[in-house]
Order: sequence, then structure tokens, then C-alpha cells
Amino acid sequence: MENIFRELEKMLEEDGHQKVLLPLLIPEDILAVESEHIKGFEEEVFWITQGGNEQLERRLALRPTSEVILYYMFRSWLRSYKDLPVKLYQRAEVFRYETKATRPLLRVRQVYWNEAHCVHLTEEECMHQVMKAIEFYEKLFREICALENLLVVERPAWDRFAGAERTFALDCYIELTGRTVQVGTSHHLGQKFTKAFGVRVKLPDGSEAWPYSNSYGISCRVLGALILTHSDDVGLILPPRIAPVKAVVVPILYKGKEEEILEYAKEVVGQLQELLGSAVLDTREERPGWKFYYWEMKGVPLRAEVGPKDLENRTVTLVRRDTREKLCVKFEELGKAKDILEDIQRNLRERSKKMLENAIKLARTMEELEKILAEKKVALVPFCSTNLEGKECAEKIKQQLAAEVLGVDLRNQKSAAGKRCIVCGKPATVWVYVAKKY
Amino acid sequence: MENIFRELEKMLEEDGHQKVLLPLLIPEDILAVESEHIKGFEEEVFWITQGGNEQLERRLALRPTSEVILYYMFRSWLRSYKDLPVKLYQRAEVFRYETKATRPLLRVRQVYWNEAHCVHLTEEECMHQVMKAIEFYEKLFREICALENLLVVERPAWDRFAGAERTFALDCYIELTGRTVQVGTSHHLGQKFTKAFGVRVKLPDGSEAWPYSNSYGISCRVLGALILTHSDDVGLILPPRIAPVKAVVVPILYKGKEEEILEYAKEVVGQLQELLGSAVLDTREERPGWKFYYWEMKGVPLRAEVGPKDLENRTVTLVRRDTREKLCVKFEELGKAKDILEDIQRNLRERSKKMLENAIKLARTMEELEKILAEKKVALVPFCSTNLEGKECAEKIKQQLAAEVLGVDLRNQKSAAGKRCIVCGKPATVWVYVAKKY
Repeated sequence: MENIFRELEKMLEEDGHQKVLLPLLIPEDILAVESEHIKGFEEEVFWITQGGNEQLERRLALRPTSEVILYYMFRSWLRSYKDLPVKLYQRAEVFRYETKATRPLLRVRQVYWNEAHCVHLTEEECMHQVMKAIEFYEKLFREICALENLLVVERPAWDRFAGAERTFALDCYIELTGRTVQVGTSHHLGQKFTKAFGVRVKLPDGSEAWPYSNSYGISCRVLGALILTHSDDVGLILPPRIAPVKAVVVPILYKGKEEEILEYAKEVVGQLQELLGSAVLDTREERPGWKFYYWEMKGVPLRAEVGPKDLENRTVTLVRRDTREKLCVKFEELGKAKDILEDIQRNLRERSKKMLENAIKLARTMEELEKILAEKKVALVPFCSTNLEGKECAEKIKQQLAAEVLGVDLRNQKSAAGKRCIVCGKPATVWVYVAKKY
Repeated sequence: MENIFRELEKMLEEDGHQKVLLPLLIPEDILAVESEHIKGFEEEVFWITQGGNEQLERRLALRPTSEVILYYMFRSWLRSYKDLPVKLYQRAEVFRYETKATRPLLRVRQVYWNEAHCVHLTEEECMHQVMKAIEFYEKLFREICALENLLVVERPAWDRFAGAERTFALDCYIELTGRTVQVGTSHHLGQKFTKAFGVRVKLPDGSEAWPYSNSYGISCRVLGALILTHSDDVGLILPPRIAPVKAVVVPILYKGKEEEILEYAKEVVGQLQELLGSAVLDTREERPGWKFYYWEMKGVPLRAEVGPKDLENRTVTLVRRDTREKLCVKFEELGKAKDILEDIQRNLRERSKKMLENAIKLARTMEELEKILAEKKVALVPFCSTNLEGKECAEKIKQQLAAEVLGVDLRNQKSAAGKRCIVCGKPATVWVYVAKKY
């Protein structure tokens, strides 16, 4: 998670985002300022009512998200068009009182996330930024996390972030279960929050304007999606670009040769550290087979075995985690380890891409839709509307099939001309993805 | 703060600490397991009693510190001597319901900190680590933060961390107010927490043992101490090693030469970025004087002015923040900027060292002690005992002079033979520092 967040923060900082740290506790009256927003969260807020042995005069909410506390500050911080654009992020925890069963990483009450917030003078600039956030996340998920099993959509009106005018989202499709995990969102808030919190700026001509704003974030759910996508029955398979340990060296100590083999193993680990940035030598008092299993379970991309034969020939046996292929290389050829890591990254990206390609199926009737979902796939269906008038049809799908309308593909907007809504039969205006969700 | 924490985390990781993220919410019954610990914190715990619109069955505490939740996990994680030592840290927030007036950075309710925890098999190894933590903090404060106005002490028995057997602390002396700020602590917990939480490990011979543990941390208070130590009437003065912006380039745009000067300023900022790692060019539409003031207030160590004369002669005017001295250098000599930063760092360290040297005064009577405190200095006084039997004398000092017994110098333990306690007149066993505290 640390490595994933660091990669994201590099992108955000290059794009002019500054790191901040915001208060966790929000007084009840401040949380209530934007009415749609509070409505969206009131069921899941943790409330502090006591400090020490005293009853507090006003309840404090554990932030379910940080918009309100930030806009409360923006009112003092932002005065002039010269203060814009402002782009901030924080790596922090937010809290949701989930009443449904929790699941590690996927549905948690303490959400570890990176949330970013920006304010722009013009709507155009603001919309540009909300899309840029999606691009950052796509790059992070696809290239760094090797998650190409990604749907990039605009959410329907009834599934927007509380208070947002538009919500864009990235959903990761999990082949194993046929469900999707929302791994990132980017919300265009329009002027709703700046108006609710009185954030107004002076223009060059002396007049005043309400600026526009967005918020966007990703959470530890991406780690859940990554584990569900890349693992096998032995354990994790971590994409090399985010693996904290890139390679492990396991010495196979034969009697009488222990010291020599260990010396050679140290040479190997030193070389791998230099080449890959990180590698560990496992010298624990355990059998090699136990160590192989231990590091495979942890998803370390590459294992280097160093035994008596390797010592004799100055070779190293490399075993890659994804395909478990073995390759014996000369010490001088250890540079190949780097190529193998790149190949693992490429392979994981391809595998995950195929998972999604194999999953998307067109459905024109509810029966077809049901069948697709039963096969653990994602359906692409013609739909009446993603405005509020489509909500009823979405609810029918949810009731009958326990699946949800994810939204319209942001990159590939297929014409729905001549098609009819899969639920109500009225003329369709869009194609939407329908899937079961985590 | 980010830069200070990063420097610390580098040291901790090199010493084998792993980063973790612990739960913020602690169920009441788990918080109560170690009785001294809960007693020490019960007055200042925030309690969550509601989730959404429901009353919770058991109250949840916002962690005031993370020992209990971690030891609760240690019981499952640590089984064998092979699992030891374990060293963990987290950068996180803890919460204290302060009823006294809060002060920015110094007395806050949401404490941003780095806390570390370790468990060792033997007491000796554990004591070694508790001292190592003090050494890390000393290095961080002295070398990186340029805070040489530092007292390193062992706290008296009545001022230990709740549940600790020994508490060591670093206090920063603030010349401006004559008060000290506790900026770091390291606690030896002995076997108290491992026993309370049932953390037991198997030894090679099959028997079991209670391991020993420590915890240590620093918080955002160090930033408060740093500001109080190094600032002047114009604003902050940041030690170059932690300044997020090392240098600012302010172009002085004369009519007709704007473009040329700006081009040259870009060359200068590029060169400074390469040399110093960070530098910004201020191109905002404001007068140069306004910009000078703006960046001085922010404490940027070095300003580079680039005007028409500099353009003509390919020179740059460098102004250092600490002494505000000016130096005109040729473009080719910009490498001097690096020397200036090092000299600022050195100068700030020396200044802060002198602050402390000028402050410490010996007192042998309560009248002398009162006079020293009134002069905003720190007293070194003979004292009966830092065990619990000395508590009464310490309370008298607190009542009469609103000052506290900080403890015994860890580095320089002067013999108190033949001296008498400044309060009760009984034979003194130690010299202790006495000061007003933040």
C-alpha cells in the first residue's frame, strides 16, 4: 500500500498538489452545512459524545470524508482568483460505520486512503482536472498495479457521491467471483460546496465569483482488488513495480560447504539489490523448502536459489513467481533478473486484460442478463437513462438479480440508437455495464 | 513535518523497523487490560458511543496511544524466540481530550506523531534499544532540525509514561519564554505489557518466557519547538535540511527587459534546483518587495534576486534568511549557494546551543530557584530523590513556582554527594533540571 500511495503521490505532486493534514473530528453543525452531503453519510457516521468523563456539548463526527472540514478552511484561505487553482491531497483515514458484514481491505470501517481536493476558477478547467484524476488513477492501476481488468465509467445519477454533480469511477473486475470492486472515484462538485460554505473569490475587475471544485480518491480497496486478481492457490503474486521485496535469495546449505555457499549467496544478494533496488537473503534456520513456500506465499516476484552446484559453476537458479518457471543463469548474467521482473509485470497486465475481455458480454433481455451474471461475467446492456428517471429500472435489476448498473463507459461510448431498455423497453439512450459489486 | 518524519523513518527503517498501520478505535474492555495504563489516560480519552443512529453496545476509545491495540495483536503474532526482536513504527494520529487551553502544535487534541514499538527477548537488548531511540531522536533534533537547545533526561518516577518502568525524554528549551517543550520520549515497559496482554514466546529449550518491550515517539511538537527557537520578528527561519523550499528566485523585472530577465531567472532557478534539490521561481504579478517579505515570512533559507544589473553582468544576488546578509556572485559561482545553506544550518545549531548554555544556572535555595525561573532560565538543583519519595518535594516546587522537575541529565550525571535537597533539606542523591513547561 505504501508503494502504491507513493507512486500516486509522485504524480499528484508533479501536478501541483500539496500535501495537507486535516482534522479528523468534525463538529455536528459543520458536517450538516451541505444538506445532500450529510444525508448521504448520516447512517454511517461514528459519533463521539464523551471526552474523559464529561459529556461533550456538541457531538463530534469521525470524518466519513474530508470535504466539509476543508471547505470550512477554504472560506478563510481562498480570497482572490490569484489563490486559484488550489490542489491538495492527504493520505489519511476516514471512518464509516458499516452495518453490513466487513471484509478485509474491501469493506472496512477504518478506510486508509488518499483523497485529493481542488478548486478552480472556471468550470472548464475544473472538468479538465476531474478527468486528469481519472487518468492518474488509470495509469497507477494499469501500469503500476498491473490491473488491466478495469472499467472506467461515469456513475448514474442515483449513484453519485453525496453532493456531487458528476461522479466518475474505476471498477476492477474480479474473475474469481464475477464481482467488481470500486477502486477509485473522481467527483465534480460544481459550485455546490463552494456555495454551501461561502467560498467566494475576487476577480481582477473587483467583482466576486463562486469557484468550482472536485474531489477524488483511492483507498486500500485497490490492494484487495490486486490480491483477488493476481493471487493463486499458493499465495500472493505481487506486481514487481509495487512489491516491497523484489527478490529473495535462498541458500541451499550442503554440509561442509555452508560457509562458501553463504558467502556466494551474499554476493548474489548484493548484486540483486544493486540491480533491482531491493532483495533479501534468507538466512533463517529453516529448510529451503519451507523458505520457498514462505516467500511464494508472500508474493515475492523472484526467487534466487544458490546451492552447491551453483557455487561450483558460479550460476544462480532463478524462479519466477507468476509462472514458476526456472532459469539457470551465470553470475555475470544476473542482469536478466531485471528483464524477468519486467516480463512478470507485462504478463500480469496481459492476464488481467484478458480476464476483462473474456468477461464482457452483451445482453438484450433480462434472461440473457441473468445468465451472464450467473456465469460470473459483466453485462453490457442498453438502458433507458442514467438520469434520475432510470433509477426505477436499476432498482428492478438490483431486486431481481442482486446486480448494479455501474454506469456508462467513459472511453468507448457506443451508440444505443434503435435499442430498447433491457428493463422497461423504452428507447435506450445509453449502454451501461451491469455487474455484481463488492 | 513531512521532511522531519521522513528523516526519522529512514533511521528507523535502517535499524530494522517496519511500517505498520494500527486501528484507531479501541474497544473499552481492551483499553482497560493494563490497569496503570488506562488510569493514566482515562481523563483524556474521546469516546465513541454512537454509529449512525444506533447506540453502540460497547464504547470505542479513540486511541490516546497505540500500545494496547498492538499488544493485543502481538499475542497472536509472537510465538517463538525466532519472531524476536520485532520493531515496528507507524506515522499516525492519536487523540487526547485536553481540557486545558490548546496551543497550535504544542498542546493539541489531534496529535500527529511517529510512534515506534519493539519487543526483545532479553532485558539487556531491550534497554539497549530504548537508548538507541534517544540517540536517533537526538541526531534528528540536533543535526537535522538544528535544535541544540536540548536537555536529555530520565524522568522522575512520578512523571513516567502510564505503565512504563523507565521514561527518558528530550526537552527543548525556548529562550523566548523560558519554558521547555517535551519533543521526544522513549519508554522502557519491562515485561508489564507483555504480561498484561499474554505475549509469551517459546525458547529453544521448549520453555516459555515473557519478553521485554519499549515504546518511543516524537510528535508535531518538534515543529512548534523549531518555530519558537529559530524564528524572528519577520517570520520563520527554517533549517535548510528540513526546509521544503531551499531557495526562491525573485526576478526584478525592469521595463523593456522583462523577457530577458525572466529567461535568465529561469536559468538561475534551474541551476539552484540541480544544486540544492529544490528551488522555486516566483513569477506572480506582485512587486519584488512583497515577494521578499512573503518568502522571508515562510522561512525559505535563501533568496536569489535577479535584476537588470545581474542580467548584464551574469551575476546573482544571494540573501540568506538567518543573518539577512547579501552576497553578489557570478552565475558560475552559484555552487556557493550550497555552502551558504550549510553555513545557515551550522549557524542555527550554534545559536540554539548558546541559548541553552546561557540558560542553565545552579540553584541551591528556593530563592535562587525562583530568581532563575523569573529570568526565564533553567535551574539545575540538588534533589532528594527521583523515586516516588521525592514526589512531595516536586509538588512543592510546582505549587510555589509553577515549575517542574524535568529529571536527571542522561549524559552528564554530576555527583550530588554532600549536597542537600533544595526543598526538604535531606541529603541530595541527584541533580535535576527544574523549568517551566509547555
